[in-house]
Amino acid sequence: MAFTFAQKVLFKHCDPAGSVCYPRYFEMMNDCVEAFFDEVLRAPFEDIHTSGGVPTAQIATRFTAPSRHGDHLILTLRVEKVGRTSFDYRMSDTCGSERRFETTATLVHITSAGRPTPWPEPIRETLSAQKDQSA
Amino acid sequence: MAFTFAQKVLFKHCDPAGSVCYPRYFEMMNDCVEAFFDEVLRAPFEDIHTSGGVPTAQIATRFTAPSRHGDHLILTLRVEKVGRTSFDYRMSDTCGSERRFETTATLVHITSAGRPTPWPEPIRETLSAQKDQSA
Amino acid sequence: MAFTFAQKVLFKHCDPAGSVCYPRYFEMMNDCVEAFFDEVLRAPFEDIHTSGGVPTAQIATRFTAPSRHGDHLILTLRVEKVGRTSFDYRMSDTCGSERRFETTATLVHITSAGRPTPWPEPIRETLSAQKDQSA
Amino acid sequence: MAFTFAQKVLFKHCDPAGSVCYPRYFEMMNDCVEAFFDEVLRAPFEDIHTSGGVPTAQIATRFTAPSRHGDHLILTLRVEKVGRTSFDYRMSDTCGSERRFETTATLVHITSAGRPTPWPEPIRETLSAQKDQSA
Repeated sequence: MAFTFAQKVLFKHCDPAGSVCYPRYFEMMNDCVEAFFDEVLRAPFEDIHTSGGVPTAQIATRFTAPSRHGDHLILTLRVEKVGRTSFDYRMSDTCGSERRFETTATLVHITSAGRPTPWPEPIRETLSAQKDQSA
Repeated sequence: MAFTFAQKVLFKHCDPAGSVCYPRYFEMMNDCVEAFFDEVLRAPFEDIHTSGGVPTAQIATRFTAPSRHGDHLILTLRVEKVGRTSFDYRMSDTCGSERRFETTATLVHITSAGRPTPWPEPIRETLSAQKDQSA
Repeated sequence: MAFTFAQKVLFKHCDPAGSVCYPRYFEMMNDCVEAFFDEVLRAPFEDIHTSGGVPTAQIATRFTAPSRHGDHLILTLRVEKVGRTSFDYRMSDTCGSERRFETTATLVHITSAGRPTPWPEPIRETLSAQKDQSA
Repeated sequence: MAFTFAQKVLFKHCDPAGSVCYPRYFEMMNDCVEAFFDEVLRAPFEDIHTSGGVPTAQIATRFTAPSRHGDHLILTLRVEKVGRTSFDYRMSDTCGSERRFETTATLVHITSAGRPTPWPEPIRETLSAQKDQSA
């Protein structure tokens, strides 16, 4: 019941070696998180950013196999831990049965002044429900 | 004696919140590593990539304070561990006396077929000398 | 009967002014052209680039209104002229009834050695059929 | 007496064909314009964007030869026409004696509400002096 996000590897993602250049993977991860907020949390980034933000506090990724132009990737996001003003997620990226990367990260909910602020109750509830589904 | 790389925060790096969007930080890190290969290891990426590559196997970053448009950042790269076919580095990013992020990563030297391959001796020697300076 | 490509304006597309930064528009245009080759010409970029390429020889764009984070854009590509080794297209971008940009461009089919080379007959036929539909 | 901006072609600029991917050229052009505002007009983007902006109204580019990883490019910006709320520039990009692209564009000075607004007098004077030097 995890959130999945499909991404074909496009020309713009690939480097002269013909593989995805890793900073482009972080764009894909960010796009996946943005879609998760939009489709699951019903809190689109374009609304959240009128009164604050959800910056990434830490992110760690292991790249286990290269991705090639034309590959059909599936990014899967699982909520791992829900805090008062933050949450942790795990994201994996696969192409068919092959793992391409595995990420863990922490997002923080902040005000426009940059201070951590509690999740609105509906978001917190959805995050908690997602976490239970992931468990 | 660590390697430093100056990067002004430009318009293209910033998001609607007026801060550096974190995938752009990974581009800066990659630019810093590319400059390190060019200026310190004397093995420019454009030469290395004719016969292989140096993909990132894992990277982990903590973002500790936001960067703003116009900030003058200094990225500092320190070699932490030199392997037969890889090396670990630590990179910090500061603006004046404020830390913006701290990264640890592992790079692997591969053939064009994607297999790990030993560093050429001159590169290994320079990496080891860099490591001793960092210690 | 023109080719259309939907693109929501994402966080990564927007600058500190909250609008799409124009180099990001050129990424969107390139993504639209890549989808057109894939879905209409049945010649995916990942196949074409094994034996050559389709670089852009010239591109001209007028930006007529800003796009904001969360806008749902529709890019529309029309084939304007089919040459032996190239074609011209016109692309417009709208959000609802508002025009955001209008582009004209020329793509050239080249060999891996960089020389212009005729379109394969099936591609040329589809391009010509597209052009007639656009007229 | 035109403004020049040096840019080495980096790994991140190059596509699977080993050449600069054209949306990346538009990032370079934007970086060159940002440096021109900073160094010549003494009106850094980070200051201008606190009270308005300088969006690109139109841009047209001819790409005449590919650029490769490691190439040392020189972008040259010449002011062509100075309006009350806008200016036109011409930009060429060369590697040694070879032309890589030629661009013409129009920038508009706007308020934060998005309306064209006259250049401050010092900027207008410098733009006019630049134009006379280019003639």
